[in-house]
Amino acid sequence: MKLFSSVNDVANINYLVKEALELKKNPFAFQHLGKNKTIGLVFMNPSLRTRMSTQKAATNLGMNVMVLNIDKEGWALELRDGVKMDGTSVEHIREAAAVMGQYVDILGLRSFPSLKDREADYGEEIFNKFVELCGVPVISLESATRHPLQSLADLITIEELKTKPRPKVVLSWAPHVKALPQAVPNSFSEWMCKADVDFTIAHPAGLELSEEFTQGANITHNQQSALADADFIYVKNWSAFEPYGKVIPSHEDWMLTNDKLRITNNAKVMHCLPVRRDLELSAEILDGPNSIVIKEASNREWAAQAVLKQMLESL
Amino acid sequence: MKLFSSVNDVANINYLVKEALELKKNPFAFQHLGKNKTIGLVFMNPSLRTRMSTQKAATNLGMNVMVLNIDKEGWALELRDGVKMDGTSVEHIREAAAVMGQYVDILGLRSFPSLKDREADYGEEIFNKFVELCGVPVISLESATRHPLQSLADLITIEELKTKPRPKVVLSWAPHVKALPQAVPNSFSEWMCKADVDFTIAHPAGLELSEEFTQGANITHNQQSALADADFIYVKNWSAFEPYGKVIPSHEDWMLTNDKLRITNNAKVMHCLPVRRDLELSAEILDGPNSIVIKEASNREWAAQAVLKQMLESL
Amino acid sequence: MKLFSSVNDVANINYLVKEALELKKNPFAFQHLGKNKTIGLVFMNPSLRTRMSTQKAATNLGMNVMVLNIDKEGWALELRDGVKMDGTSVEHIREAAAVMGQYVDILGLRSFPSLKDREADYGEEIFNKFVELCGVPVISLESATRHPLQSLADLITIEELKTKPRPKVVLSWAPHVKALPQAVPNSFSEWMCKADVDFTIAHPAGLELSEEFTQGANITHNQQSALADADFIYVKNWSAFEPYGKVIPSHEDWMLTNDKLRITNNAKVMHCLPVRRDLELSAEILDGPNSIVIKEASNREWAAQAVLKQMLESL
Repeated sequence: MKLFSSVNDVANINYLVKEALELKKNPFAFQHLGKNKTIGLVFMNPSLRTRMSTQKAATNLGMNVMVLNIDKEGWALELRDGVKMDGTSVEHIREAAAVMGQYVDILGLRSFPSLKDREADYGEEIFNKFVELCGVPVISLESATRHPLQSLADLITIEELKTKPRPKVVLSWAPHVKALPQAVPNSFSEWMCKADVDFTIAHPAGLELSEEFTQGANITHNQQSALADADFIYVKNWSAFEPYGKVIPSHEDWMLTNDKLRITNNAKVMHCLPVRRDLELSAEILDGPNSIVIKEASNREWAAQAVLKQMLESL
Repeated sequence: MKLFSSVNDVANINYLVKEALELKKNPFAFQHLGKNKTIGLVFMNPSLRTRMSTQKAATNLGMNVMVLNIDKEGWALELRDGVKMDGTSVEHIREAAAVMGQYVDILGLRSFPSLKDREADYGEEIFNKFVELCGVPVISLESATRHPLQSLADLITIEELKTKPRPKVVLSWAPHVKALPQAVPNSFSEWMCKADVDFTIAHPAGLELSEEFTQGANITHNQQSALADADFIYVKNWSAFEPYGKVIPSHEDWMLTNDKLRITNNAKVMHCLPVRRDLELSAEILDGPNSIVIKEASNREWAAQAVLKQMLESL
Repeated sequence: MKLFSSVNDVANINYLVKEALELKKNPFAFQHLGKNKTIGLVFMNPSLRTRMSTQKAATNLGMNVMVLNIDKEGWALELRDGVKMDGTSVEHIREAAAVMGQYVDILGLRSFPSLKDREADYGEEIFNKFVELCGVPVISLESATRHPLQSLADLITIEELKTKPRPKVVLSWAPHVKALPQAVPNSFSEWMCKADVDFTIAHPAGLELSEEFTQGANITHNQQSALADADFIYVKNWSAFEPYGKVIPSHEDWMLTNDKLRITNNAKVMHCLPVRRDLELSAEILDGPNSIVIKEASNREWAAQAVLKQMLESL
């Protein structure tokens, strides 16, 4: 694997999940692969799970890790081409990306969307420029429109905990006070549409995701009908795709509670974290037996390790 | 050892000191213990000595180290239970602690007190929540009320440099312009009360430490009488326990000088650092032959390594 | 080598370049040298290339690396002697430097100049205090007046790409909107004056570098005459040495363009990076065949590794 930016970069998602679960049983079996190999983890935004799990996964594989918080430790980046750099940005992304690629064998990059310029965000301008210019394999640590390591961990978790061959999985929109990216729901949706699950998306009117990511999903504005008989509920807020980045207020009743779980198949509740308690998701669920959010976060390690293993094998 | 938060977590402090001094002679003898083990060092506050010495100690033992400056690199944490998270905090400590524990074998945590809410600080709410929720052994990198790695390094240093079986050790309050925590003096006091030393605390009236930490110490408001025949003087500022966090002004004459050393037994002068020169402690002492502050800082490495070795042995 | 702060610390620059080029061919051949050795990389200022390349070089040699962004992760440092520390600085450089030296075998330090106090900057007060107090070998990661790892990488690059025994190398001043240090041009100049090249410096009147660094260079205010037949052009802005730190405006025509390259010997164009596109250097050159800035950045790894190798050999 030379690039991991979306489900489309994966030859066989079932095989990748299987490999992740094998690595989970035997994390240190492939340290020869990473010997004298270095991954650079470049963060333009905060990160806890991605930062720690990817670092751990690389170390499990015997790699060296260099972390760069480029927003704090490096130079202010210019992202636009064709500008005279006489303002506050000190280094152009063209040089920064090419230089970083000189010192690492694999580059991980986190770059959030602006939520202001949809064309730039959905064109993945920053992420794609790194891919184009750095000259080494790139792994997404969440880009403007996708979070594939999260989605892979989600699929691993469903695979581990499902009690029937084809579980019902529901992506259920959740309330929030801030405009959040669509990266996690986009990504979750495109992975679920390729996985062996019965997949439904529930959200209020006006919060449709881009159709690019939802081909094959059932989509409804009725949360209750979606939750009926659900085996897994994936809770997540996102802001509107159209008008881009808008926060849709007055949907506090979309927050998942124990009461709403009654019509499900004793559904397991997922969230990518961080989660705002009693706003996005009720504390009673997070602290109760149906929540699998910590296990899901834990599987981030094996998702990252499976992807890095395939990348190392193709170096 | 499954927890290192205070002297009470140590079965035998003399044995721990002895082990530290043996590691100092032979730092790399136990690298098999840490192989494929990872420590996460989580900082909610600045750190120099603790950061570097603990990282070095873990590396000496063959461990992998992941550092997380959670205040800058992660998400703003919510510490209170039972709140609807519709403000500025993005992640609850419950999820953050549980998630971090998934990726590490041992977790180190630094969390300073607020100095505003004594009940919360002395209840060690943040530190204890990590211990409760992370699911792995925890080592304190300084919490609201204690700094046990510092105190262990202090005891190692006294053991190394003492010239009599039971030296006189004086904790002498020092002036400052800011409200500082009581963690270092609390911790030093409870370690000294269990060590084989003659221990005195000297401070102006109104700066009594919590009695929980000072059982067995001689306590005086007369600095001169305390210093008489002292073998070791531990200089440190702290703010008041009652009224909590108050800075007591007008005690500049408590700063230790060469002149004050005359009545001591050519006392060695200690400070945990960072130290404000010519405010807490005179430059003439820091630059003179009686100061052992750098040796004391150096012993932080062996303190951390002795504790981590015991933790690794009990994994 | 016990100190790497300038070209004067190098016994034989040709041998060092040769060693770097051999390490480039065989990066992992000397991992026994760094086993159980630790380098501390201390940054008082931002860094991308130096941070990553030095970290990588140390890892190639089998060393452990600890990075400290002291401006963000440590304590506010007091740099002046003889002051009562009752202001905002929390720790004196005397203690900080001595303490850091306790935990590492080699210390790397980046400390930019103030550009306000020329005597302090050119006295290298911060860097020299670390050298004096830390007690271990020190490698400059760019100090107030020099950037020797950059200059060594530059010389390696010239050695690799030159097509004649004694190429013509031109340091050509470039426009900028901010006051930048003289460290890179100072350092480049003193290395070139010792290397086997024909060296010319071109800059507008009023931007003379300190003569300490330019002995043996041809110096001109006529950019065009300097560029004639040049084999390598090193583009760099700097602020005035006298009056110190002044930005000299109205020299936008000094920016290098493809048109200006016509009179050169198809010159290769260098820059230490970060570079401001279309202000310091035209995008057409950076994106064209004459630019070797990425190769130059890449050679930072081998420069650092050659220096660290010599330091490890002398421990």
